[in-house]
Amino acid sequence: MEKKVALLLAPGFEEAEAIVVVDILRRLKIRVDLLACQDEREVSSFHAIPIKADALLAEHAGELYDAVILPGGPQGARNLGASAQVVAFVKNHQDAGKLICPICSAGAHVLAANALLQGRRYTCSGDNHTLYADGQFVPEKIVRDGNVLSGRGLGVVFEFALAIGAELVGAELAEDKAEHIYFDHWRRAMGPLPA
Amino acid sequence: MEKKVALLLAPGFEEAEAIVVVDILRRLKIRVDLLACQDEREVSSFHAIPIKADALLAEHAGELYDAVILPGGPQGARNLGASAQVVAFVKNHQDAGKLICPICSAGAHVLAANALLQGRRYTCSGDNHTLYADGQFVPEKIVRDGNVLSGRGLGVVFEFALAIGAELVGAELAEDKAEHIYFDHWRRAMGPLPA
Repeated sequence: MEKKVALLLAPGFEEAEAIVVVDILRRLKIRVDLLACQDEREVSSFHAIPIKADALLAEHAGELYDAVILPGGPQGARNLGASAQVVAFVKNHQDAGKLICPICSAGAHVLAANALLQGRRYTCSGDNHTLYADGQFVPEKIVRDGNVLSGRGLGVVFEFALAIGAELVGAELAEDKAEHIYFDHWRRAMGPLPA
Repeated sequence: MEKKVALLLAPGFEEAEAIVVVDILRRLKIRVDLLACQDEREVSSFHAIPIKADALLAEHAGELYDAVILPGGPQGARNLGASAQVVAFVKNHQDAGKLICPICSAGAHVLAANALLQGRRYTCSGDNHTLYADGQFVPEKIVRDGNVLSGRGLGVVFEFALAIGAELVGAELAEDKAEHIYFDHWRRAMGPLPA
């Protein structure tokens, strides 16, 4: 069955953390819905680039996806974390055991801030993890604990996107795609493929 | 003096190749003008994401930038290469010795296709280089020959953006930014900093 992923965009989202992920996942033939967490589809990014989402989160609030992607951005992640609609959406997916994938400050400002990590290990940027009691910070590029797959920051976004892709459609397809785009850090970051 | 860069967007542009570059360069306090090479500011990317440029290329056709960035995308690069306005703009910058920076298929479909490499060494994706007589293809991540700085494809876009940044504002600032975003492949790719 086709895999589907929701990528949540709030004003100030880190544009490259969002766009690299949708790019890689669509290359892997995964359906990605860019969902605007506001009242209109066009959302302005961290560096003030207006990007048009596929739909509003409000239009898909009751839908269950295979994964929810939460990009960072200093204000973008805080905006996601402060939205009752976003928190309810993520909690629905958390309760259903779906993959929750924060990158950069989103692990802290969205998940830990709302006690959605439930003690899980995670990574995030800078010292944002010190602001919240929930979760156990690990200073690694990519951290997987149960259904939470987190990435540390912008510079690991290819590893992050490929790890999500590997989880959804298999490591071999992700590896092929990494080679196709000349991303030769993938094998080194992830170790050997599972047998 | 503030450095300024033009990033050209034609329909079908590879979104992450464009967005990572503008993100990194704006983090380095370089002015980046996203210029739409069509009649309206909103341009649809390779994976059908509508992104709004800062202005039309037509509005800045006579301006000289410190660098011109040409993203790939199977159709996006061909659209750039087929535009007389784009070719004239790049030629102006070439004649003035400004930095010309194609990534992925843009080195072939924009520069080689229009004899703008003038024999220089360059890299590009796949076997696109075999389609055109101009230029000498080199299968490396980043190739610099004179004022042409080319990147092979999507997976080397951070190295590409940081190399452009290093050229415009210095390797030390680029290195600091790479560390800040946890991109630890930078030092390895570029070798030691110049003394």
